[in-house]
Amino acid sequence: MRIKGIRETSASLASPMRNAVIDFSKMTLSVVAVIMDAKLEGDRIIGFGFNSNGRYSQGGVLRERLIPRLLGADPDSLLDDQGILDPVRVNACMLQNEKPGGHGERAFAVGALDAAIWDAIGKAEGKPLYKIFAERFNDDIYDNRVSVYPGGGYYDEEKGIEGLKSELKGYLDTGYVLMKIKVGGAALEEDKRRIDAALSIVGEGRNLAVDANAALGIDEALRYANAMSEYELAWFEEPIDPLDFKGYAELAAAVPIPLATAENLFSEADAENLLSYGGLRRDCDWLQFDPSLCYGPTTFLNIVRKGERMGWSSRRHIPHGGHQLGLHLAAGLQLGGTETYPLVFQPFGGFGDEDEIKEGYINLPDSPGLGVEMKSELYNKILKPLIDG
Amino acid sequence: MRIKGIRETSASLASPMRNAVIDFSKMTLSVVAVIMDAKLEGDRIIGFGFNSNGRYSQGGVLRERLIPRLLGADPDSLLDDQGILDPVRVNACMLQNEKPGGHGERAFAVGALDAAIWDAIGKAEGKPLYKIFAERFNDDIYDNRVSVYPGGGYYDEEKGIEGLKSELKGYLDTGYVLMKIKVGGAALEEDKRRIDAALSIVGEGRNLAVDANAALGIDEALRYANAMSEYELAWFEEPIDPLDFKGYAELAAAVPIPLATAENLFSEADAENLLSYGGLRRDCDWLQFDPSLCYGPTTFLNIVRKGERMGWSSRRHIPHGGHQLGLHLAAGLQLGGTETYPLVFQPFGGFGDEDEIKEGYINLPDSPGLGVEMKSELYNKILKPLIDG
Repeated sequence: MRIKGIRETSASLASPMRNAVIDFSKMTLSVVAVIMDAKLEGDRIIGFGFNSNGRYSQGGVLRERLIPRLLGADPDSLLDDQGILDPVRVNACMLQNEKPGGHGERAFAVGALDAAIWDAIGKAEGKPLYKIFAERFNDDIYDNRVSVYPGGGYYDEEKGIEGLKSELKGYLDTGYVLMKIKVGGAALEEDKRRIDAALSIVGEGRNLAVDANAALGIDEALRYANAMSEYELAWFEEPIDPLDFKGYAELAAAVPIPLATAENLFSEADAENLLSYGGLRRDCDWLQFDPSLCYGPTTFLNIVRKGERMGWSSRRHIPHGGHQLGLHLAAGLQLGGTETYPLVFQPFGGFGDEDEIKEGYINLPDSPGLGVEMKSELYNKILKPLIDG
Repeated sequence: MRIKGIRETSASLASPMRNAVIDFSKMTLSVVAVIMDAKLEGDRIIGFGFNSNGRYSQGGVLRERLIPRLLGADPDSLLDDQGILDPVRVNACMLQNEKPGGHGERAFAVGALDAAIWDAIGKAEGKPLYKIFAERFNDDIYDNRVSVYPGGGYYDEEKGIEGLKSELKGYLDTGYVLMKIKVGGAALEEDKRRIDAALSIVGEGRNLAVDANAALGIDEALRYANAMSEYELAWFEEPIDPLDFKGYAELAAAVPIPLATAENLFSEADAENLLSYGGLRRDCDWLQFDPSLCYGPTTFLNIVRKGERMGWSSRRHIPHGGHQLGLHLAAGLQLGGTETYPLVFQPFGGFGDEDEIKEGYINLPDSPGLGVEMKSELYNKILKPLIDG
């Protein structure tokens, strides 16, 4: 099983909405296809990978550094003892001659390729990825269904509060229970009106999370967190800069509302620092590392294991990113759930065409690898043209 | 004074040597030219900027995100009250719709452009940059000369220990006093032979620094640091991963040798975390943030000021990077000195053609801005073709 070729492209994620910090009108992401020389039931094995939203495509890093290194390596040096691609060796190859620290765009480019490598491994073994993750990293134990919630409730000037309510009503009708809206991009009083409106749809029981996308300074965040603590909310996400560990410790000590963060930390070292210095509470706070951005599932797995050594149950992780990769990791490592994007960031957001949400949970797919072939618009509009083109 | 156009290119820094972690045979960097509509003594003002070594060129981020944002902005929105480019506004424009955290390649791309903006400001005011930095940020007080040391002593299989000695003898003959060699890329015993050889050239008095380029784990780093402490060395640089704050705190508590780090941290938030959690000693350790990589001199200035608020004298900073930008910042902010690369990373390393080193110090240049025009090979081979091409 050897890599025969690698293709990459940039795709648009352009969307009209904004959070408290950025708008998404020019958002892009990288999509890669790793073409293997091996076949599964007569079809050539092709691993697909792509990033989640928010960090733009990384064609430069892919074309100039990572892909030449992989294609220039001795193919056997990338395999494990069974002759299957070894993600750890593939990662080491991608990162040769890269200095430590500075975990930004490089992490996103590696993340897309690493996801594709795992997709190819799943296809080579003829198994959905969650079963592979469980076999290799979780004593072959996995969850048969995963708690999912829609990332939504963005600011949208045309939509207003009535639009927000009908968006959430739509999620409720689709089968979701837990959902999330943006805060911190308007005055606190308006955000409170948005929360009241949202709670009128989702009902009681900590089924609404709020997300400030790191827009606030610490004083404003404390004011917000105190106001948010008056509601029964699931969590208050990214009140402040993701690297402001001192600020997180101050918030966690001061307010009862659960905090959630980590979608904007991309390395094991940053993860360890957050858990060491951020003062987060193992019994109520949430970790949202993004497996498609943090150097890929290989590093995400290491982060979950590192967290366990530091006293954090895998159930405290609910990955950011909103697509099939998070779903497989959530089932295979028995995480707390995963995010999804039923309405935005199409055709990448969400799961397979036939997948149904029931009472906030989704069952796992049977198709080998990530299962991107079961997501027809993504496959037909983006992935198939990439390999045919 | 408005931006008329921006050009960028990738240049090779290919060099045959290696440190303990990477080789430099395929190293590149980004070079940018910001073309203004204003003139200085009849010549159009063009600001030049470029990165230092180690992090590769960032054409993708520049072309796809930063340059379109700058050229798409209302030109007046980038100016200060005097009608001169305002680096803070330019930075905010470059970073619009960028999420927080993830300070990697984006920081390097912004760094090159921010350096060019400052070069243009210096040219518009007809002053060398160190005087501008001093006027704006240091009560108009600056140093007339700056302590410089050559970054060198790389591993090179053909060179051997005799080659290392003649390299350092060359620096000594050029006027340098303090110099630096690599460690951590060979067995400790061989590194000790390299240190013995180096000390036989530089003599007594803490004139030799050693640099492990983050190659070591904490146990190995402690073993090395204890061995290094037997010599009178200037500092032990980057023994461990730059984000391993716990490890730095452990080292600083355990060994007497001064530590140096921070060339691989690229944001104000990372800087604050290093100073909060890294256990570094204000009376003997060194900070080496790289102004061309950490979002540019604008952010570097903020890091120095943040350090002062946390009890760190500006004299504890000796920037990584080895070119004229570090020299101007060292004089204008009264830092502890700056690195230079007289032999490697040409034609970018080092200062102007006529600049002389005397007893380890260099005088400041008079030419406006960064003074890249006084570095003929850089100007004629790289910068002039970029604006003519």
